[in-house]
Amino acid sequence: MGSPAHPADPLVDLRSDTVTRPTPGMRRAMAEAEVGDDVYGEDPAVRALEERVADLLGHEAALFVPSGTMGNQIGMRLVCEPGQEVLCDADAHVVTYEMGAAAAVFGISTRTVVTGGRLDADQLVAQARGRDDWHLTATAAIAVENTHNRGGGLVQPLGQLERLFAWSREHGVAVHLDGARLVNASVASGVPLATYGRLADTVSVCLSKGLGAPVGSVLVASAERIAAGRLWRKRLGGGMRQAGVLAAAGLYALDHHVERLADDHEHARLLAERIGVDPARVETNIVVVEDVAAPMIAEAAKARGVLVSQVDARRLRLVTHLDVDRAGVERAADVVAGLIGR
Amino acid sequence: MGSPAHPADPLVDLRSDTVTRPTPGMRRAMAEAEVGDDVYGEDPAVRALEERVADLLGHEAALFVPSGTMGNQIGMRLVCEPGQEVLCDADAHVVTYEMGAAAAVFGISTRTVVTGGRLDADQLVAQARGRDDWHLTATAAIAVENTHNRGGGLVQPLGQLERLFAWSREHGVAVHLDGARLVNASVASGVPLATYGRLADTVSVCLSKGLGAPVGSVLVASAERIAAGRLWRKRLGGGMRQAGVLAAAGLYALDHHVERLADDHEHARLLAERIGVDPARVETNIVVVEDVAAPMIAEAAKARGVLVSQVDARRLRLVTHLDVDRAGVERAADVVAGLIGR
Amino acid sequence: MGSPAHPADPLVDLRSDTVTRPTPGMRRAMAEAEVGDDVYGEDPAVRALEERVADLLGHEAALFVPSGTMGNQIGMRLVCEPGQEVLCDADAHVVTYEMGAAAAVFGISTRTVVTGGRLDADQLVAQARGRDDWHLTATAAIAVENTHNRGGGLVQPLGQLERLFAWSREHGVAVHLDGARLVNASVASGVPLATYGRLADTVSVCLSKGLGAPVGSVLVASAERIAAGRLWRKRLGGGMRQAGVLAAAGLYALDHHVERLADDHEHARLLAERIGVDPARVETNIVVVEDVAAPMIAEAAKARGVLVSQVDARRLRLVTHLDVDRAGVERAADVVAGLIGR
Amino acid sequence: MGSPAHPADPLVDLRSDTVTRPTPGMRRAMAEAEVGDDVYGEDPAVRALEERVADLLGHEAALFVPSGTMGNQIGMRLVCEPGQEVLCDADAHVVTYEMGAAAAVFGISTRTVVTGGRLDADQLVAQARGRDDWHLTATAAIAVENTHNRGGGLVQPLGQLERLFAWSREHGVAVHLDGARLVNASVASGVPLATYGRLADTVSVCLSKGLGAPVGSVLVASAERIAAGRLWRKRLGGGMRQAGVLAAAGLYALDHHVERLADDHEHARLLAERIGVDPARVETNIVVVEDVAAPMIAEAAKARGVLVSQVDARRLRLVTHLDVDRAGVERAADVVAGLIGR
Repeated sequence: MGSPAHPADPLVDLRSDTVTRPTPGMRRAMAEAEVGDDVYGEDPAVRALEERVADLLGHEAALFVPSGTMGNQIGMRLVCEPGQEVLCDADAHVVTYEMGAAAAVFGISTRTVVTGGRLDADQLVAQARGRDDWHLTATAAIAVENTHNRGGGLVQPLGQLERLFAWSREHGVAVHLDGARLVNASVASGVPLATYGRLADTVSVCLSKGLGAPVGSVLVASAERIAAGRLWRKRLGGGMRQAGVLAAAGLYALDHHVERLADDHEHARLLAERIGVDPARVETNIVVVEDVAAPMIAEAAKARGVLVSQVDARRLRLVTHLDVDRAGVERAADVVAGLIGR
Repeated sequence: MGSPAHPADPLVDLRSDTVTRPTPGMRRAMAEAEVGDDVYGEDPAVRALEERVADLLGHEAALFVPSGTMGNQIGMRLVCEPGQEVLCDADAHVVTYEMGAAAAVFGISTRTVVTGGRLDADQLVAQARGRDDWHLTATAAIAVENTHNRGGGLVQPLGQLERLFAWSREHGVAVHLDGARLVNASVASGVPLATYGRLADTVSVCLSKGLGAPVGSVLVASAERIAAGRLWRKRLGGGMRQAGVLAAAGLYALDHHVERLADDHEHARLLAERIGVDPARVETNIVVVEDVAAPMIAEAAKARGVLVSQVDARRLRLVTHLDVDRAGVERAADVVAGLIGR
Repeated sequence: MGSPAHPADPLVDLRSDTVTRPTPGMRRAMAEAEVGDDVYGEDPAVRALEERVADLLGHEAALFVPSGTMGNQIGMRLVCEPGQEVLCDADAHVVTYEMGAAAAVFGISTRTVVTGGRLDADQLVAQARGRDDWHLTATAAIAVENTHNRGGGLVQPLGQLERLFAWSREHGVAVHLDGARLVNASVASGVPLATYGRLADTVSVCLSKGLGAPVGSVLVASAERIAAGRLWRKRLGGGMRQAGVLAAAGLYALDHHVERLADDHEHARLLAERIGVDPARVETNIVVVEDVAAPMIAEAAKARGVLVSQVDARRLRLVTHLDVDRAGVERAADVVAGLIGR
Repeated sequence: MGSPAHPADPLVDLRSDTVTRPTPGMRRAMAEAEVGDDVYGEDPAVRALEERVADLLGHEAALFVPSGTMGNQIGMRLVCEPGQEVLCDADAHVVTYEMGAAAAVFGISTRTVVTGGRLDADQLVAQARGRDDWHLTATAAIAVENTHNRGGGLVQPLGQLERLFAWSREHGVAVHLDGARLVNASVASGVPLATYGRLADTVSVCLSKGLGAPVGSVLVASAERIAAGRLWRKRLGGGMRQAGVLAAAGLYALDHHVERLADDHEHARLLAERIGVDPARVETNIVVVEDVAAPMIAEAAKARGVLVSQVDARRLRLVTHLDVDRAGVERAADVVAGLIGR
């Protein structure tokens, strides 16, 4: 069930799956990467990664970007003009953790619905507004997050995704999928990535979360949209030169770190059981502990060598990943369970 | 109870209170207005109007703007930086009918809560997010609409406004009041305008709705904010020269058209009763008829000389105002009641 | 040669032609205007004005806006996407006096060439950059100002305008004409307005400068562009309700105040002669006096009842208009000539 | 005088110094980098790089960003608010090759002066405009490029930089230095980096050009500005996780690739001599060949194994760098000289 990549590490860091450090094999792949100037479109590793991810997600083309935020934001821009709006959950990453970029950078409005994280297509589309009115803010796109981070790693039901997509085709509204942890969703649900991918117009997936690459996300869409996205990436300052050193890590992760996400999911369920969270609510690698004094417990756990993050003042989040093995998970479970006294 | 301003008009136009045309007295006031170049700050009528409205609302200073949209948008910009967010109802005018201006023009995000229109301070503030985080989109302001247009002219409860304002002071969050129809709220509730005004940092009120002026709104705030707002007005193209011809109409409206709003409110209740809408839900001059085939009825009513507007496919909106007298209201009630068969 | 509109006025105000106040006839036209809700497209006076100005300038459609700034900014937005650039003179009104709106509101870059005001098509187009490059900021449009305000009311040579327009057709670049004082140019040069109008894709003309209307400008373009511009006007807060009260003034101005601009031009030449400015440089209603201690002289003139404006620390600007008759001009000439001692 | 990093390469690629690929030693440094999550501020290699570059340039703090474009754009945003303007050369990288980002992303206007590339402080500041006017677009900052790319790698005269900076202090205007190739300037002129650095408020330097790192630039400024810049980096999608793998390359470059820039400069002079360009105009690693049929020659050279870039239709650019040794330079010189027939 996996051995820790960094065994000597005295801390169990469950704050996020973004904290993973590249393994020796991944570092080797990076050191040996064949590279070129990707701003000129000449980096072979970046090209290979883009082709592979486009293929995996059932889309024509892909764009390597330095972060999930850039992937999501450009993805939304490709389906929404300044002055139009994107509809999404009020707890979505794109409106919570991306610092207002949609509005600040692209002039895109977001209108949100408080949902708790689980997609209910009908609830969302009830808020959509027509495109051709002379004074309504037009709903150009709907953004979905799968898995849903603040919802606790929820996997969106395939039926709801299909229902939303079918509605979107009828109404000329686009769908953007924030798939930062879409590979977790796929591993957990058994739904192929391409099945998820084809239910959206633009999809962003992260290599730097559960997959364990140090840097980078990939945005997929039609070839025409990706061509436009490439210009926006340049404009945002996301055009990188010999980015193949990063893309090589992403390719390595796709080769070696996909199936092992099942370990992270099992670890998360184990954590939940020990801490007293209903394991039925733990669908992937995130455990949200509710109704606790989050800041106090986070601090006390840190003093005992376990790092967790705070969703808000009453909720903790624990995320399992490549750099935490079963022993670490057990240690963390003991510490947190002791502190919350369940 | 008022005679129609334009008696020969064959149509009863209940689409909006924006359709009113200036009365002979108001036209005379405009024709005789003493004016100057307001871009230079030299228009006496504009200055008088700004001082008067600031005073009425209990604020230091005011800015005359060509529309309620400009008043709201500049008002929000004065309390929210690009990249920050304004929290409000999902059906608020500022996110529904202002074409995404907050994001498109100012880079301001809006995050919304589906409420039905009636302010519930706790529900709203539960969604607010802190200001000093390194990755959260910070909630800089909350926008409230009073009366609430799409909610059917609801008057926001004073207690909720007070609760929200008290919370906002503790948390360093600003309050913007979209008071397009705040005078209706005040006439209906008996709460003085200044009481409402003091429960917000920026307030926009319209002269061109129930008050019957042809053009213009006024934004009030602190003197410092209004000075900054004046620059934004220029930048948006809202700097007008001898705007006193419009301001004179606004001053006339404040002298002659405030108390008569009670007539509009009575007319709306009369309409509601005749049409079969619960009069308890009609608090000011707007009647929303639910669960009807809105496009079909709107068209049929038009053919019978009555204009109404559609909130959406299942809801009609009827708005009473200065240009519709009791006879017109009764005629409209007969037509609409006949069509919806209640 | 015209009598002063406001004979009792103790001041001769030459700061700008924006300071004119509506004449009794114009006020009467406003008071009698037939109006409607222009946001609904139902104001007959606005429609009449839009049709008339579109026609005068040889374009399909027109949009009434509250200011020249809004006319210019929307005009440029209609021919330039966010991320693209507009090329223009470094002293153009659109980059000098519009508070950075192109960038701040629309995300449009401006690249400028220092020219002194007189259009030299070759000099300008030498700076243009192709549209389809993967890293160049693309030049989407060129903006021309006619007459050129800071250049001293210069009339742009028709040959240069033709040369620029011909080049623009070959290169897929649009032309926006800031025609705030285009009527002055036409009266001075004898070139019909439509001849100027047809050498640009979008044209903004002001009613509130030499024409003497209190408020408003008109943007003309193709019907398709104006439809898009109407949405932008709403988004910027420029949608006004019974704007016909203003449009009526514009129509009156087109009927009564066009030919008399020749008086203003003669007055300007008279001023120039008396003050010692080369009359050959005074082509319309603006006189720029160079190499003077502008702040000191402006203040001293004010103390003597003559208001002038400062272009910068070494340049004064005197503008003739409807509200200054020959006697006023002579008085102003005496005062200023005395102060600058030429 | 340096041996080629990739000796078997059949092409001599002089298009840009961005095309360099990491050397074996640099790859080793990357593979062994100690890393952490830099979005949490925990990557030791990134921190070390930021401290080192801040120190080198005489500033308090630094921010690692994925590209020179992001460094420049955030740098300008830190000293200029939306609606204000940055003044710079019309051929500056920030207005030529950054796709209008200042306006599109940040709402910042750019006003430009055609200079040819060599800084003339007086010429530039003559165009600056005051900050507190009610209708002028305020000049908040001046951007300088050193070396100047499109000017042919010109080193800006220290006296002019000092003159500009002194003026800027008196007038409350900031200076941003686009130092993409500032290390080249320093090596060529002998002026220490910190001397250049202290003559600006914000400075961006690139690691991925002459220094040979694969990805990354560093922005330096005051600690307070860098803290704000960190938020903007996140908003733009430039927050990267284990970015230490890239920072390690930057640190290696600072250790091993600074002094060798002198070789590139000598190579450039050699190229110039052979091709018939006045060597006095070649101050660093860029050779611009003027008055040639650029597209034709670029294509013919490519067929002969030499890649060059086109500044415009009549100008070629050749850039020397780490991956081209003397033999390559001589081969390129022969090919290009043959083609242009000088």
